[in-house]
Amino acid sequence: MIQAIFAPLAAGFAGAAGLRDDAAVVSPQPGMDLVVTTDSLVADVHFLSTDDPALIARKALRVNLSDLAAKGADARGYLLAIALSPAQDEGWLKRFAQGLAEDQARFGCPLIGGDTVATPGPLTITLTALGEVPEGRAVRRGGGRPGDMVYVSGTIGDGALGLKAVRGELSGSGADALKQRYWLPEPRLALVPALLAYATAAMDISDGLIGDLGLLCHASGVSADIEAGRVPLSAAAREIVASMPGMREVCLAGGDDYEILCAVPPSQAPAFEQASAAAGVTVTAIGRLVEGTLPPVCRDEHGRPMTFSRLSYSHIA
Amino acid sequence: MIQAIFAPLAAGFAGAAGLRDDAAVVSPQPGMDLVVTTDSLVADVHFLSTDDPALIARKALRVNLSDLAAKGADARGYLLAIALSPAQDEGWLKRFAQGLAEDQARFGCPLIGGDTVATPGPLTITLTALGEVPEGRAVRRGGGRPGDMVYVSGTIGDGALGLKAVRGELSGSGADALKQRYWLPEPRLALVPALLAYATAAMDISDGLIGDLGLLCHASGVSADIEAGRVPLSAAAREIVASMPGMREVCLAGGDDYEILCAVPPSQAPAFEQASAAAGVTVTAIGRLVEGTLPPVCRDEHGRPMTFSRLSYSHIA
Repeated sequence: MIQAIFAPLAAGFAGAAGLRDDAAVVSPQPGMDLVVTTDSLVADVHFLSTDDPALIARKALRVNLSDLAAKGADARGYLLAIALSPAQDEGWLKRFAQGLAEDQARFGCPLIGGDTVATPGPLTITLTALGEVPEGRAVRRGGGRPGDMVYVSGTIGDGALGLKAVRGELSGSGADALKQRYWLPEPRLALVPALLAYATAAMDISDGLIGDLGLLCHASGVSADIEAGRVPLSAAAREIVASMPGMREVCLAGGDDYEILCAVPPSQAPAFEQASAAAGVTVTAIGRLVEGTLPPVCRDEHGRPMTFSRLSYSHIA
Repeated sequence: MIQAIFAPLAAGFAGAAGLRDDAAVVSPQPGMDLVVTTDSLVADVHFLSTDDPALIARKALRVNLSDLAAKGADARGYLLAIALSPAQDEGWLKRFAQGLAEDQARFGCPLIGGDTVATPGPLTITLTALGEVPEGRAVRRGGGRPGDMVYVSGTIGDGALGLKAVRGELSGSGADALKQRYWLPEPRLALVPALLAYATAAMDISDGLIGDLGLLCHASGVSADIEAGRVPLSAAAREIVASMPGMREVCLAGGDDYEILCAVPPSQAPAFEQASAAAGVTVTAIGRLVEGTLPPVCRDEHGRPMTFSRLSYSHIA
């Protein structure tokens, strides 16, 4: 039954052998490195078990594609290991597969293998995505240099606010748009050429801008100085922050953004912005990398370092 | 803390970036295909949560390496996605990492990436292994032809009997050896050159010889005719079957063998046996692939087709 549901997702990839083999065979193109990433999602920790199965599937794929994009890699295929609880019946699985089918067509990334097991615990989805990047060109977290400009793609905070909306902790005119951003992050594969050409370091923002910037700085052996007022917020997020100032911290430290955080030398900044715009993605400079090993500083409108009571709001439990 | 425990396992692989990045970078050798396989193991379904963490780790790695071996691939690296329950404390994790360290050194297969999450449910381990095989040469399940001889490596049934011993359902002089075989299957990477040279089809036996032979036949569009009396049993297994004849079915259909099942044209059989022996692995011909699409027939000593009340004893729950 499971074979019948998932095999069509692998039909276009010869190396998947219709999911009837022990392993997938991938033929890398000459001159390319393979980029491999894996993420586990647990029901009621990383998503709500009552979420639409198609959205759960699409998010599981998208968060991995976001990791590939951040490394400058084009998506090539994915493996799906799924531990099913008794709650996932055939209807659930079909809807889950529909979501995968829709997004794997959109992003050109077929299912190539996987494993299905039963669990007495919560549904657990582990997706491993494979991508390709020109040899030696993968964009690492650790390549940032003092003086580099710090950029983010899109808008920050919608995912964390969207989770609050899904949980009924936020309402208002923008709540539906925010929920949608929480359920369906946009992997920035369109930014791959611009990142390969201009970024010294990059990662995707999954656990909150402030915390993830700290990871990029740590890997690069630098610190950073950014301005909260320059962090781009969506109209819906701005409206919420205007009426509930505490929500600003949720935006900056919240997580579930799946936007790109990257460092670009100032001399390359105009070209990076131009290439990003040509790819249909807005990027915004929010500050600089600086010498030092202290955690990044995020300044408020008065230039004062902000403190955050909590890093990462991205988990449900 | 988790970073500190696992990072040393990735120290020798530059593309892992010390596990401080979103993804691993693998540079395939020219002229090689990449083979990718993933397996999930759930506590108290696929192993006992009371098992030694080092043995759980080693088995998780070995079952994936067994898949690579069956495809004719040499191991290159692995990703580990682990969903930790509250029961896994620092001591547990250290012991788990020790097991990985021991076996990844033994099999030349470093940790290259992964993900760690928390779960309110059972410990769940998803390991994704990457291997390399000469371009276009991966040994598939679907290449078997009528007339090919059916071979298995090692001895069959020890894993399934070992699980019974672990559960206290078997005792006697051989019980300890059988438990060891259940906990620590031997991935037959040594057979890779012989499989590449001579096998038309191969898979590893994880869910029981009879059921897995059915899968190989189905993928190859053939049937098979094998003799139970030719299936190699260990001394410990023979002793148990002699006193408890019902245990024969457990050996033939049981699972957790992680031996190689393969098809070899009769003209190549002597060379295959010789190459396997030279690699230190005993292989035994147990029958033939035959025309047809019916499930494989396994004959008893009187030439009568046997029936099996249950296929696969490999799961605990």
